[in-house]
Amino acid sequence: MDERSVLLARYRATRAHTERLSAPLSPEDQQLQAMADASPTKWHRGHTTWFFETFVLGPQGVSPLDERYGLLFNSYYEAVGPRHARAHRGMLSRPTAQQVTAWRARVDEQMQQLLASCEEPVLQRLTPLVRLGIAHEEQHQELILTDIVAAMALHPHKPAALPDFPPDVPAPWKGRRELEGGLVSIGVQPGELPFAFDNEGPRHSVWLHPYAISERLVTVGEWAAFAEDGGYQTPSLWLSDGLAVVRAQGWEAPAYTRREGRAVVHFGPEGERELHPDAPCTGLSFYEADALATWLGARLPTEAEWEHAASAERDEPDRIGPSMGQWYGAAWQWTRSSYAPYPGFRPAAGAVGEYNGKFMIDQQVLRGSSSYTPPGHSRPTYRNFWPSPTRFQKTGLRLAWDLSP
Amino acid sequence: MDERSVLLARYRATRAHTERLSAPLSPEDQQLQAMADASPTKWHRGHTTWFFETFVLGPQGVSPLDERYGLLFNSYYEAVGPRHARAHRGMLSRPTAQQVTAWRARVDEQMQQLLASCEEPVLQRLTPLVRLGIAHEEQHQELILTDIVAAMALHPHKPAALPDFPPDVPAPWKGRRELEGGLVSIGVQPGELPFAFDNEGPRHSVWLHPYAISERLVTVGEWAAFAEDGGYQTPSLWLSDGLAVVRAQGWEAPAYTRREGRAVVHFGPEGERELHPDAPCTGLSFYEADALATWLGARLPTEAEWEHAASAERDEPDRIGPSMGQWYGAAWQWTRSSYAPYPGFRPAAGAVGEYNGKFMIDQQVLRGSSSYTPPGHSRPTYRNFWPSPTRFQKTGLRLAWDLSP
Amino acid sequence: MDERSVLLARYRATRAHTERLSAPLSPEDQQLQAMADASPTKWHRGHTTWFFETFVLGPQGVSPLDERYGLLFNSYYEAVGPRHARAHRGMLSRPTAQQVTAWRARVDEQMQQLLASCEEPVLQRLTPLVRLGIAHEEQHQELILTDIVAAMALHPHKPAALPDFPPDVPAPWKGRRELEGGLVSIGVQPGELPFAFDNEGPRHSVWLHPYAISERLVTVGEWAAFAEDGGYQTPSLWLSDGLAVVRAQGWEAPAYTRREGRAVVHFGPEGERELHPDAPCTGLSFYEADALATWLGARLPTEAEWEHAASAERDEPDRIGPSMGQWYGAAWQWTRSSYAPYPGFRPAAGAVGEYNGKFMIDQQVLRGSSSYTPPGHSRPTYRNFWPSPTRFQKTGLRLAWDLSP
Amino acid sequence: MDERSVLLARYRATRAHTERLSAPLSPEDQQLQAMADASPTKWHRGHTTWFFETFVLGPQGVSPLDERYGLLFNSYYEAVGPRHARAHRGMLSRPTAQQVTAWRARVDEQMQQLLASCEEPVLQRLTPLVRLGIAHEEQHQELILTDIVAAMALHPHKPAALPDFPPDVPAPWKGRRELEGGLVSIGVQPGELPFAFDNEGPRHSVWLHPYAISERLVTVGEWAAFAEDGGYQTPSLWLSDGLAVVRAQGWEAPAYTRREGRAVVHFGPEGERELHPDAPCTGLSFYEADALATWLGARLPTEAEWEHAASAERDEPDRIGPSMGQWYGAAWQWTRSSYAPYPGFRPAAGAVGEYNGKFMIDQQVLRGSSSYTPPGHSRPTYRNFWPSPTRFQKTGLRLAWDLSP
Repeated sequence: MDERSVLLARYRATRAHTERLSAPLSPEDQQLQAMADASPTKWHRGHTTWFFETFVLGPQGVSPLDERYGLLFNSYYEAVGPRHARAHRGMLSRPTAQQVTAWRARVDEQMQQLLASCEEPVLQRLTPLVRLGIAHEEQHQELILTDIVAAMALHPHKPAALPDFPPDVPAPWKGRRELEGGLVSIGVQPGELPFAFDNEGPRHSVWLHPYAISERLVTVGEWAAFAEDGGYQTPSLWLSDGLAVVRAQGWEAPAYTRREGRAVVHFGPEGERELHPDAPCTGLSFYEADALATWLGARLPTEAEWEHAASAERDEPDRIGPSMGQWYGAAWQWTRSSYAPYPGFRPAAGAVGEYNGKFMIDQQVLRGSSSYTPPGHSRPTYRNFWPSPTRFQKTGLRLAWDLSP
Repeated sequence: MDERSVLLARYRATRAHTERLSAPLSPEDQQLQAMADASPTKWHRGHTTWFFETFVLGPQGVSPLDERYGLLFNSYYEAVGPRHARAHRGMLSRPTAQQVTAWRARVDEQMQQLLASCEEPVLQRLTPLVRLGIAHEEQHQELILTDIVAAMALHPHKPAALPDFPPDVPAPWKGRRELEGGLVSIGVQPGELPFAFDNEGPRHSVWLHPYAISERLVTVGEWAAFAEDGGYQTPSLWLSDGLAVVRAQGWEAPAYTRREGRAVVHFGPEGERELHPDAPCTGLSFYEADALATWLGARLPTEAEWEHAASAERDEPDRIGPSMGQWYGAAWQWTRSSYAPYPGFRPAAGAVGEYNGKFMIDQQVLRGSSSYTPPGHSRPTYRNFWPSPTRFQKTGLRLAWDLSP
Repeated sequence: MDERSVLLARYRATRAHTERLSAPLSPEDQQLQAMADASPTKWHRGHTTWFFETFVLGPQGVSPLDERYGLLFNSYYEAVGPRHARAHRGMLSRPTAQQVTAWRARVDEQMQQLLASCEEPVLQRLTPLVRLGIAHEEQHQELILTDIVAAMALHPHKPAALPDFPPDVPAPWKGRRELEGGLVSIGVQPGELPFAFDNEGPRHSVWLHPYAISERLVTVGEWAAFAEDGGYQTPSLWLSDGLAVVRAQGWEAPAYTRREGRAVVHFGPEGERELHPDAPCTGLSFYEADALATWLGARLPTEAEWEHAASAERDEPDRIGPSMGQWYGAAWQWTRSSYAPYPGFRPAAGAVGEYNGKFMIDQQVLRGSSSYTPPGHSRPTYRNFWPSPTRFQKTGLRLAWDLSP
Repeated sequence: MDERSVLLARYRATRAHTERLSAPLSPEDQQLQAMADASPTKWHRGHTTWFFETFVLGPQGVSPLDERYGLLFNSYYEAVGPRHARAHRGMLSRPTAQQVTAWRARVDEQMQQLLASCEEPVLQRLTPLVRLGIAHEEQHQELILTDIVAAMALHPHKPAALPDFPPDVPAPWKGRRELEGGLVSIGVQPGELPFAFDNEGPRHSVWLHPYAISERLVTVGEWAAFAEDGGYQTPSLWLSDGLAVVRAQGWEAPAYTRREGRAVVHFGPEGERELHPDAPCTGLSFYEADALATWLGARLPTEAEWEHAASAERDEPDRIGPSMGQWYGAAWQWTRSSYAPYPGFRPAAGAVGEYNGKFMIDQQVLRGSSSYTPPGHSRPTYRNFWPSPTRFQKTGLRLAWDLSP
């Protein structure tokens, strides 16, 4: 396939995946907003559509379906009064889900016509934007899942949003890998990949001390042992802020999770289900991940350690051997690294570009991807980030250890 | 018509009126909850249905459509954890609006069959409960209107929920009536009326000092003059608590109301509209009503004064002359009386009966009824009540004055 | 003694009593402010001094010791930004306690010189103001006690603020009195007494239904039985707002009170002490008083009922017999009446006069006086008032019952 | 001087400095607590004394003056219920300031006797603890200043806590230094220095990219130009969290600072004073420091960059030339680095040792020292840390720039 066909195919597939995720949800379901940090399904469907209409179609002279939609579906107008607006997305009963479906169809038709028929130089100019729009919509696909779970969890009947969603896969212990560190390169150079977010670059040198890293994620069984050992009540395991939050919130288990006798029960898109002890433990805040690692005699890896190990596995499969390692597709993995600009980082200019830099404070980096992440979205250099108390994402951890030089 | 037919007709009319109010609203609209003190349209439709299913049909052996609905639509389970539950009614995406419509139809069929065919003694026993259910549904009809206005007011496009809803009617100045007071009776004796709430009785004596009372409500024009005179910024006009709230909330106009040049614009079920200066001023908190009365050289009436005057008008139309007086159907009227039990009041026993007594603290009595109140719902002895800062109801005021004995 | 001497003597005695209360407290103690609703001892001592300096001495041409004290010790400047200022009284380290002592001495000397030597017409003009200042300082004497108890209760060592303060006196059951009611007069006519607050008048008629009223206050033993019976956990006993507060605050006992096995232990100015079962139960919110009365098969009296019974006792001691009845000096007694203006009430004009009217919303009237009230301060018409959740005052209750006519 | 004499002299000097700082403050001043994050002067004086009594004297068999002081002056008991206790330090009227003075004198006498007369091996064991106690007391000396400024700033008269405190020193522009980076070492190896905090080690390698760093701090004049240019209202200059705080708090100037016409006025220990345009800008949150750096076309340095530059200056004065550079003694300098453990960091064991590790989340590192820091307290490896919104410390910034390799 040529590049144009590839782009068209990815566009179509991404847009269709969003609609497939939303299809089992009623107009009422799609209206739900569980908290200020979540958004209704309908809003995600509209916002991703608004992105293509505004940044791709608009500059090509295509006028929007409804000029007033910008105010509703533009996440950037938050600069004018962010929290109020964001907290009230669940109040946007109009347009209806049906109207959003029609809007999506119209934009998809316009997009496909544009991409199929535009001149080559235009296509060159549009390609990066379309790729950004696709990556952006993939992020919102993950949010559709986390946000609808948050919403359904508030319903006394705990209904399954997506009854067919596959449960987490257990993974046996695979040992740990030892890496000698030294001067290594992380990050991605602009232009090196077909697409990467601005926060993933520039590629740069980092000095790593010798370390070991686990070949799988911390499991439900390990968490249960921690909890049974009084982990949530042992101050010496916790960061000071973490302990305060644990007490204030009365946390005794990860989000959407509870112990029921010896079983551990979890609420996900597929409803409530007992977890396998070897399944990855998810729904953890950074505080819990850190305390759990401490209790297990280990620590969280830095993001450079994580990326170095994940890249090594990818680049040298023969030396290391075939290992799934749960680097991707199980759970986002908290790192010890706070979210900060790489040396030499410059935010891209303009509205599309102000994307990531302004969030670079008081958040921790997560690496990998989760079972909610659409396939093909992540890569070794990908930097996800959330504040330390966040638990409503599909978040777990991988252990690391210092090695003597 | 015999009593049975009258009851059946009133039941049918009441239930149909609820559906007529909701008909223009989409499933998404019916899901909206603007604040903890409001409920979604769908919830009102379900809750009133649950009332008949539980208190009338249940004891007659009719089983509920879905046993789990009790948890969702029972306002009494609030005793177990009230604010949390109530604040999350907007999160109940299931059952859908369509499912609630089907539930209503089923209950209506069951109710009509029961009322049409039951033995006379059964009918005698059921009649008070059905009348209570009707009065209860009428209250929720008013709430459907206030709550959907609150919801639509949060939408940036300010859509009209019910575009055909009639606007407020202006009323010319009609003067004031002077009453000599003395020992008067207020309230209703149990059994005296086909239906009354428990808080309206028992009938009892009250000593009234001579007073005058206005023949119409305070108008938009009077409020505008108050505001232009700096009323909201003049501490001596305000109760201490009221001033604190005015400042904390930045109030400059009644709820849903703003001045636009010399015009006063108001958002209601019919959308945004300019108000006539002689229309009743509504959306007022008790604090604003009290300050406005003070600024106009008057005061609020007590509930006994209001009831005595309203009853006199009703009982002696010839002596007083034909006067609409805006006693009903324009706006609920704040009184100077806090909501307290009448002498000899005993709350009725049981779940249905615990209705009113437990709210008898820190609320002010309102009398009359508003343009949102369904016709036939109110009467001279009717006691509505809300906390002093409440503005999201259709609330205004009528002036009173002390007369020298 | 002539009137001038009487006034001088009362002035001297009142001012000396304030200093006697404060004498055992260190400069640090006098600086403490336990909460926004309380004030430091030093502030009370300064504020009462500021009153005489501003309203009595100022108009006679006496200049203040320090012009900047007005801003610190004027409670009326709250109109400009009340809560902030009030909440920060504990931050006023300057002037020091020693400087306030010197200020008090200076003002006392100036006041005594003025009262002793001024012309008779001047004395006539000043007398009402001085009496108001005395009554005002007496109110603050009670607050000095309640506020220092609130402060000391926060100290982990629970030190006794005033180790010599006498404990509450137990009182045996004395039965209840039955009154037939009818048209009675309550309140005080302007000029009828040497001094009364504006909110006590005008005298006016009220219609009372037949009622009975207890001859003593509800006791610690009765409260303990209520608590043991699960009173705090029984929703049907509580007003809806009260239940919410009980749950939110985790109330299980009155303020400063806890059960220790079968004993009931209380923290007061004299430190921690076990209470006699026949001692009056104090530290109760209105909610608790109401629930306790309900549990005891009774209700709270209205303020008119209370005043009528208390006046009858005072006016007709022969018919009723010699009974202390705990009308005064044990605990303030919550009534069922919300704080509202009497018919014909007009707030006095000017700064001194805006005293009471602006608080007439969402507060309940208390009658009598407490063991913290200075002798001679209260009377049958005296109206104290606090919001329903208030517990940091010395507040209890007396029972009433409806009688059949 | 031998080591024993040096230790004794440093102990004496440190303790005396604390008393010198507190001497101008009245018992009432020493009681003030402006906010939960601040402590009263008296508490600082007691807490530092408790440290020596508990960790040095106690294990030598010296019994404490009052066993109950531990509860009051132990900051570690916060683990049991931190925020409540800490927020109420201003409520500890007992012991009085005078009693704390006596306690300090007693402990000083005991400490000096112990240090002067103990056997050499005991001295060896005690020395690290005494040095920790001295460093700890020096930290509280800085807090005494920041906390009393916070307290006095709330007094309407804005009194000067320490009228003789010297004002900030203006510094002329000195240019910037360019450093080539590469593999450098930062941190301190255990045992390398007489004293260092655990968070300063271990010494380890870091790869630095070429950078430039300013030879002085950002000035009041530069801040004023930023503010006049609308800096506080320009979203693109701010981190997202920072903008939200600026708006929520209404920040328009650094803490204790306001513009008055063209002048910039600041409140410090010496009272209110106009600032020289070349004085360092202080009272800045991390958010403001970051925005100010961005507006100036620069960025904040990382802590490794800062330390490398500061050490280079110290180690190679000849090459770089004599430059004060405001590295110490003007203001703490925000860095772009979040507070995290160095590679290989292990928290010291035991109560004294749990010192720093548990705060390593959501705080930013500050380097240098301020005019409030006692001389000799800081060093190139010293890591101070505060949350991003913190403004009540004496905090400013130094600029850095990326250089092309």
